[in-house]
Amino acid sequence: MAHIELGNESPGIGGLMEYRPDTGRALSGLAEVLLRADETIDRDDNTLTRGERELIATYVSSLNQCKFCSTSHAAFAAAQLPGGAEAVVDTCADLDTAPVSDKVKALLRVAGAVQQSGKAVTPELVAAARETGATDLEIHDTVLIAAAFCMYNRYVDGLGTWAPDDPAGYEAAAQRIVAEGYMARHREPAV
Amino acid sequence: MAHIELGNESPGIGGLMEYRPDTGRALSGLAEVLLRADETIDRDDNTLTRGERELIATYVSSLNQCKFCSTSHAAFAAAQLPGGAEAVVDTCADLDTAPVSDKVKALLRVAGAVQQSGKAVTPELVAAARETGATDLEIHDTVLIAAAFCMYNRYVDGLGTWAPDDPAGYEAAAQRIVAEGYMARHREPAV
Repeated sequence: MAHIELGNESPGIGGLMEYRPDTGRALSGLAEVLLRADETIDRDDNTLTRGERELIATYVSSLNQCKFCSTSHAAFAAAQLPGGAEAVVDTCADLDTAPVSDKVKALLRVAGAVQQSGKAVTPELVAAARETGATDLEIHDTVLIAAAFCMYNRYVDGLGTWAPDDPAGYEAAAQRIVAEGYMARHREPAV
Repeated sequence: MAHIELGNESPGIGGLMEYRPDTGRALSGLAEVLLRADETIDRDDNTLTRGERELIATYVSSLNQCKFCSTSHAAFAAAQLPGGAEAVVDTCADLDTAPVSDKVKALLRVAGAVQQSGKAVTPELVAAARETGATDLEIHDTVLIAAAFCMYNRYVDGLGTWAPDDPAGYEAAAQRIVAEGYMARHREPAV
């Protein structure tokens, strides 16, 4: 049971967004621009795909042991990565043998440092990412995605929200996110 | 020196927002609704003032040892709290003797737990806040402010931005935030 009376039965961040729609809209807006917005992702110096961005979100959520966020974003990543669910599971299990590019591995190491603390990001980690071809904008987006999930994870667990066990709900959410993005829920008519 | 080439000399999060305006706008939008938006703050069940919200931001930034954010938000809190800068310093130094209400103290203890991990927020900490009169919405906002500063702090330090030593810049920023809010910088004409 959540720490506060939400007035709805929705799991995870969904219940919190229904409870306080104005902060919910701001949180979804950030996810949309960071994880999906084409105008930036399609720039030559920002080639991280939507699947790779969701993988960073999943990796950080898994380090933070946030069940709702890690299961949700694992489904969103699986739906948008060539390697599917297996690639997501293998990456979170062991970065060294992860079935992703050296660039994504190096960026995930940066993300893992951010999960500990901003100060844990060393010039060496950044240089290692750059050596694999990561651009400044990709390093920027990796740090901000990792930092943002340190927020979303704390929000979801800090208010004691519940997370379903059944994978079906997460898969349905993945289809919705892939098709419509993070802002769709806020476009529904107010009730 | 920042870990990436920002193309500007602005300190802290300002330099990052100039570098990537679309994520900057989303981050400022969240700060505005969470720390300032009157329509929610003025509700009967959400009486945390702007100064108290900035104090929560300062407290978490200070626990995360983020110099730019803790100094900035300390100035924003000082400008909006009856006790001024002294109240901010005394609160960050020792919650037990902090010159703030029992409710704000109990909420700062919740915020301190969020800084560690979402899972560190116990039913006991929430019950203690409720006993001092904290409402569900105030507990919600406290958790989200604390979580959000775990993001802002990691973003600012994870990209190695610089923080001025001179207090004058922080005080000027405080005057601007108090008068115009967090979105004003994004309303300036593009250059």
